[in-house]
Formats: sequence, C-alpha cells, structure tokens
Amino acid sequence: MSRVLKLTLAYDGTDYVGWQRQTNGRSIQQVVEEAIGAFVPGGPRIVVEGASRTDAGVHALGQVASAALDVGFDTATIQRALNIRLPVDVRVLAVEDAPPAFHARFRSRGKSYQYRIGIARVASPFSQRYSWHSPGIRDLPAMRAAATALLGEHDFSSFQTAGSDPETTVRTITRLDVLEQDQEVVIVIDGTGFLRHMVRAIVGTLAEVGWGGRPAASVAEVLASRDRRAAGRTAPACGLFLTSVHY
Amino acid sequence: MSRVLKLTLAYDGTDYVGWQRQTNGRSIQQVVEEAIGAFVPGGPRIVVEGASRTDAGVHALGQVASAALDVGFDTATIQRALNIRLPVDVRVLAVEDAPPAFHARFRSRGKSYQYRIGIARVASPFSQRYSWHSPGIRDLPAMRAAATALLGEHDFSSFQTAGSDPETTVRTITRLDVLEQDQEVVIVIDGTGFLRHMVRAIVGTLAEVGWGGRPAASVAEVLASRDRRAAGRTAPACGLFLTSVHY
Repeated sequence: MSRVLKLTLAYDGTDYVGWQRQTNGRSIQQVVEEAIGAFVPGGPRIVVEGASRTDAGVHALGQVASAALDVGFDTATIQRALNIRLPVDVRVLAVEDAPPAFHARFRSRGKSYQYRIGIARVASPFSQRYSWHSPGIRDLPAMRAAATALLGEHDFSSFQTAGSDPETTVRTITRLDVLEQDQEVVIVIDGTGFLRHMVRAIVGTLAEVGWGGRPAASVAEVLASRDRRAAGRTAPACGLFLTSVHY
Repeated sequence: MSRVLKLTLAYDGTDYVGWQRQTNGRSIQQVVEEAIGAFVPGGPRIVVEGASRTDAGVHALGQVASAALDVGFDTATIQRALNIRLPVDVRVLAVEDAPPAFHARFRSRGKSYQYRIGIARVASPFSQRYSWHSPGIRDLPAMRAAATALLGEHDFSSFQTAGSDPETTVRTITRLDVLEQDQEVVIVIDGTGFLRHMVRAIVGTLAEVGWGGRPAASVAEVLASRDRRAAGRTAPACGLFLTSVHY
C-alpha cells in the first residue's frame, strides 16, 4: 500500500548539524530516515522531506516532514515504532495519512517561529541550551516600534545571509510580536516563508534596538537598503524554535 | 580579611557525578572550588561545603554552599569572577557575607525539593534532561491521599538507601504536595532534612500509587515496616531539583 505520511516532529537541535543531511555530522533528517529504514520495507531508500531546513542548533516544537512509503501499519504503530528507534532528543508527535500530492516543503503556506532571549542578570543553567542570554536588552517598546516596519510584504534581502540564492527575496511577515515573560523576551514571528538566517538576522537587529545601540526608526532604512551589512548580527541558533508549519 | 561567604547556586546536574568530589568524574563541588582557586589567594586549598550532597544527575535551583576565605573583593565582584570561570551549567545566583560560624550543611534547618514527572503520551525532547517520563501516572487523588501518611515526624528508614548510616533515621516532612501543570506532575517536598535517596524513594512509591499498582493506604504500612524493600523503586535522578535551603 503506497501512501504519503505527514510527520509532526519536536527536537532539541543542540547536538545536531541541522535538519538537512550533511557530511560533517548527524542531522535530524538522517536520524528520522534511519528510524524509518529500520522497520519499513525498502526503508533505507526512503527520503524524508522537512518543511523547514532548520540550521545547526535550532530547535523544533512542530516541524513537519513528509515521506512516501509502502507500508500497511496504522499510524499509531508507525509513531510508536519511530519513537522507539529515534534518539530521545527527537520525538514524533503525530503521524497522519496525507493526500498523495502532499509534500512538507513545497505545500507549506507559512511557518511560525519563536526566539527566546534570556534577560536575567545571571543566565539560568536550564535555559543556556534554549535561549540567547542577552541581559542588556531593556527597551521593549523600541523593539516593538522597529518590528512594525518589518510587517507585511517586503524584499528582505537585507536580512538574508550572503551565498543563498532564492528565486525571489520577497516574503510576507504576518506577525512579529515582542513579548516578555519570566525574565525572557520572546519574539514571535509568523510568515509565508523565510530566507536563510532571516529570523535570526531580524532578531539580531531588534536586539540592537533593545540595547539602545540602534534607533527603532532605522529599521525601515535597513529594509530599503537591500544590503545585509546594514542589518544587525545574526542571533545565535540556540534561541530559535520552529513552532509550527501551516498548510 | 578572613570571612565566611554564603553562595547560592543553580546547576544542571546532568553532566556531573553529583555535588560531592568523587574520583570517577567531575563534581559540582570540584568546579566551584576550582573557580575559587583560580582567583583567590590560597584558593587551591579552599573547601566549599554544600548544604545538600545532591546525587549524580540531580539539579539545583537554590543549593547553598559556604566557604571561609581571606579576600577583600566585594561580593558582586566575587560573583562575577566565579561566573566567568564556572562552566555555563553551574551559576552563582548570589554571594553574601555570612556570620563567622555559618556552615551551609550544619546550620541548615530545612530543605525544599521538587520532583517533575512528565505525563504527556510522547515525552518532550526539551524535558528529557529535567523530568522523569512516566505517562502511566493518572491517579493524582490517590497519590495525595498516600502523601498525607508521610507528613510530620517519622522514622523514614523504609525510604533510605541501604549502606548509608546516619545517627538517626527520624525526619520531619512539613510539606508534600502533588501538583499538576502543563502535562507534568510536580511533587513538592519540604522537610527538616532527608536521608540518602529519600525524596526519590518517596516519589517512586507515590508513582506506584499513581499508576494503580499500590493502594494509597499501604504507604502507612510501608513507613511502619522500617524496611526499604517495602517501599517503591528509587525514581530517576533527572527529575529532582533542590529548590532551596532554609536557615
């Protein structure tokens, strides 16, 4: 029985080279494909496509992946079989049957991310894997003012890491909120899609505004410049979570 | 200037052999003593005493330690100097001057612990270092009923790991709450002091009640038996947090 499965995954990306298979270390894609390969007929040849090619060290609360395979097990059995075989820092939260044309990346209509910044004076030892400790960030109203310039459809080439070469650098951000909770600043960002390192370049730029090192009003100029050097530093990977993928 | 310092520490115990120096690996005590030794005159000979000798893998949100040393720096400078030198999974939350007779362990009048049990069907990859995944636990009212039998002053030898040999096995538990929040059961336990592995043996016994494998009323009999074999298994270290020490 040939079918297409939709997998929803959560993972702690700390010890991985990212979603995509690499020659320099263990990737999430590799461990998921190996787990499938261990119990499905023809498994070692099955490719699992992820909606987002999360970078090394980036986490996921709701990555979506798809795989075409020829297996009769029910979805609950497949989920259990994968979780038994996967490392404990990668978990399958759900397995569903999808339409034959489903593809996790090509069918994605949007993604949601969260970026966590620790602002306690002393970093918690329990959040060092899961947030960027940057206690100098104080001016949240300025960060919120800067964020409004980025909402909507824009050419985001100022926030794209050089070397990537997409067909278009126009993307739409539908939500960009700067929240504060429990000694953390949480930046929530939803959009139709994101360029390489775009979320982390936006966070790095907003952080400079939050430190007082960049005026909020300058962010519109950064966007207009279409020059990566105009934007702030790329924030570290450890604070970034892919929270969900929309179809 | 000779003085006694009171240090408040938080640590992720995952990668340590416990508080106390051991020959088989890196301990929290060792890294704190090394950090002090690196910047204090006579540092390499300074002993840091912890209030609780937390086991391998046990975490702390508020361990207290004391050290007598001969140094003129102000407490804020000492805190910064320690945090710069300590690994990121061990943090000094506070440094205070204490009376000359202060000793973190001997002067302790009580301690508070939390034990976290994950009950989501699929374990979160972000809590595997910080909780015991035991999704079969369902009957919290029975756990609460069992807990009442343990409140107050009792001989807790049924909950002590064999081989330890304290002067007395009588201890007083002043709080034992079974809470539920966000797919977790959190057991909060406060007392005058605890025998070796006592918190984890209590949690393991309450967990068996929560699974339906042991009647709530039997816990009073376990206590009366003064026999470690009557109680439940020792729960894993990863779920246990020393939250505070009282003086």
